[in-house]
Amino acid sequence: MTRLYNFSAGPAILPQEVLAQAAHDLPDYQGMGASLLEMSHRGPVVVNLVEETTALLRSLLRVPDTHEVLFLQGGGRLQFSMVPMNLLGAAAEACYIINGAWSRAAAIEAAKLCHINVFSPPPGKGLPLPESILVPNDAAYLYYCQNETIHGIEFNYVPPAPECVPLVSDVSSNFLTRPIDFKKHALVFAAAQKNLAPAGMAVVIVRKDLLGLAGEDTPAMMNYSVHAKAHSEYNTPPVFCIWMANLVLKWTERQGGVPEMQKRAKERSDIVYHAIDASGGFYVNNVVPAERSRTNVVFAVKDPVLTPLFVREAQKEGLVNLKGHRLVGGLRASLYNAMPLEGAKTLANFMADFLERHG
Amino acid sequence: MTRLYNFSAGPAILPQEVLAQAAHDLPDYQGMGASLLEMSHRGPVVVNLVEETTALLRSLLRVPDTHEVLFLQGGGRLQFSMVPMNLLGAAAEACYIINGAWSRAAAIEAAKLCHINVFSPPPGKGLPLPESILVPNDAAYLYYCQNETIHGIEFNYVPPAPECVPLVSDVSSNFLTRPIDFKKHALVFAAAQKNLAPAGMAVVIVRKDLLGLAGEDTPAMMNYSVHAKAHSEYNTPPVFCIWMANLVLKWTERQGGVPEMQKRAKERSDIVYHAIDASGGFYVNNVVPAERSRTNVVFAVKDPVLTPLFVREAQKEGLVNLKGHRLVGGLRASLYNAMPLEGAKTLANFMADFLERHG
Repeated sequence: MTRLYNFSAGPAILPQEVLAQAAHDLPDYQGMGASLLEMSHRGPVVVNLVEETTALLRSLLRVPDTHEVLFLQGGGRLQFSMVPMNLLGAAAEACYIINGAWSRAAAIEAAKLCHINVFSPPPGKGLPLPESILVPNDAAYLYYCQNETIHGIEFNYVPPAPECVPLVSDVSSNFLTRPIDFKKHALVFAAAQKNLAPAGMAVVIVRKDLLGLAGEDTPAMMNYSVHAKAHSEYNTPPVFCIWMANLVLKWTERQGGVPEMQKRAKERSDIVYHAIDASGGFYVNNVVPAERSRTNVVFAVKDPVLTPLFVREAQKEGLVNLKGHRLVGGLRASLYNAMPLEGAKTLANFMADFLERHG
Repeated sequence: MTRLYNFSAGPAILPQEVLAQAAHDLPDYQGMGASLLEMSHRGPVVVNLVEETTALLRSLLRVPDTHEVLFLQGGGRLQFSMVPMNLLGAAAEACYIINGAWSRAAAIEAAKLCHINVFSPPPGKGLPLPESILVPNDAAYLYYCQNETIHGIEFNYVPPAPECVPLVSDVSSNFLTRPIDFKKHALVFAAAQKNLAPAGMAVVIVRKDLLGLAGEDTPAMMNYSVHAKAHSEYNTPPVFCIWMANLVLKWTERQGGVPEMQKRAKERSDIVYHAIDASGGFYVNNVVPAERSRTNVVFAVKDPVLTPLFVREAQKEGLVNLKGHRLVGGLRASLYNAMPLEGAKTLANFMADFLERHG
């Protein structure tokens, strides 16, 4: 079948070249007589793959030597617990900005381990006012989710924290779509299944001086320090995901790296937001324009009766997975790095056409 | 290149047909216009895949309705912590049989959470005497590792425990090579990367009445009950691993299921053990014959100077990954379900030939 434009929020679209190369190399990796999936993680091929993938990520995101790069299982959700387990140390509380479902889920896990101090947006806004984020000097860390995929809200500023308080961010859904300031961020993590690889892995980038805060009773698998010492090979790593990340990172580099991805993320989302804003109220997006996500455009047809029809007709045109998250309903177009500009244009054209027929 | 005979202990050999089909379907799953890796885990294709894979596993291992089947990230190692977190309940201690590196590693993690009561083999043996395993009625559970891959020791009996004490087993390395008695086993788990799928997943089969013992402060991702309620889709599951498990289980079924795998495991290992025992002491295996592993034949060349030469020459013949684990040195031939009988025969012939040249 013709390739679809897949607007899934994750697992999400992957670059076609990457899928083709993976398929080609799957049965016999580089003519070695075995699949990469069959090779020991202690052998040179997998060890080199992990090293090369780490180096690629470091180069693309300009990760400084102050930070360690880890590839871990458990997706983003396990990080909701690993972050407090590793960073609390002797502190009694951690600060959380809650402005959507993912930051809320992270805060719920942290609250099992310590007191949490919450900052929220004022009514009608998706982000808190920077001046309202008053982090005490003795907080273990300040946590925020850079892009809330379900609500389509993306941070457009770095939340302020005292220099002595580590800043932690879930960057799962806008990973590799803009630079990360590692002078300000002590720890970022990203579930792989948006812009990096298939599901089954998270990348954690953590300041080295914070390793070792976890208590002795922390499960070894939940201890960043254990994984860092073993270069992500304490246990058998998710080799396939690391391999796919390797191919996706090389693809990202060939396209022009993070600056080019940033440019495209803006172009793609501008096209879809324009289709919404030019619809005279037929399509609705309630996010303050400056806070709109570039990777997850959450919108609705004003008359919700038309939503299932929109999804069905779009599907017929090869535009799939546009249904909104079950928590908020409506529609959502996730526009990750692997989505061609043409996908956003085709969607915008379909939206205009649908409006003409049903508006 | 010609396909190698890969004796890696894990990640390990996979059936060639499975690799070929995966490669074929990777870019465009069943003509749907997208890769399975790009599909939402909430959509019908992935949901059906998880259901079908669960049903296949249930059928092959005759898992009764009393038990839940879970596909989780974190490999076997995360289970070392999840088992006590979920089964301790109000009990003050758990019992561990320690007879090798993997049961020891599991016990170390449990000891972070409770007192552990240890049973060990007598000198010169690989398994404790059944009558020495005296489990108190108020123990949270009795844990054992059915097959110690590093030492090449496999349980040939089910350890006795009072009926009220759940029996837990790590069956990672002999999974699907023999039946599991679920009347006796309350929980078994297996890391995927031996007989089931590539690395990045564990299967947990747990008695339903034990779900819900975890405390409220248990991280959601570590709580079996949370995963069971969500049918392994609480978080984004490792879709690729589940897909590969699906293909491997279908392959296993086509071959004749677990009875046939059990027969082959014996045949393959008999061939290699015979090559050792018939070598007049040139090759050494120190495991009591009745305790020898059918999936991991751990041996040595009596003169250790010859070990690197053995590995090099074997490699030239297409017999790879025969080096022993770094903890014990020597040699190891892992003979999992996907290893053709011809692989074991070729290894035995090479061993005889090497003996003739260097004995």
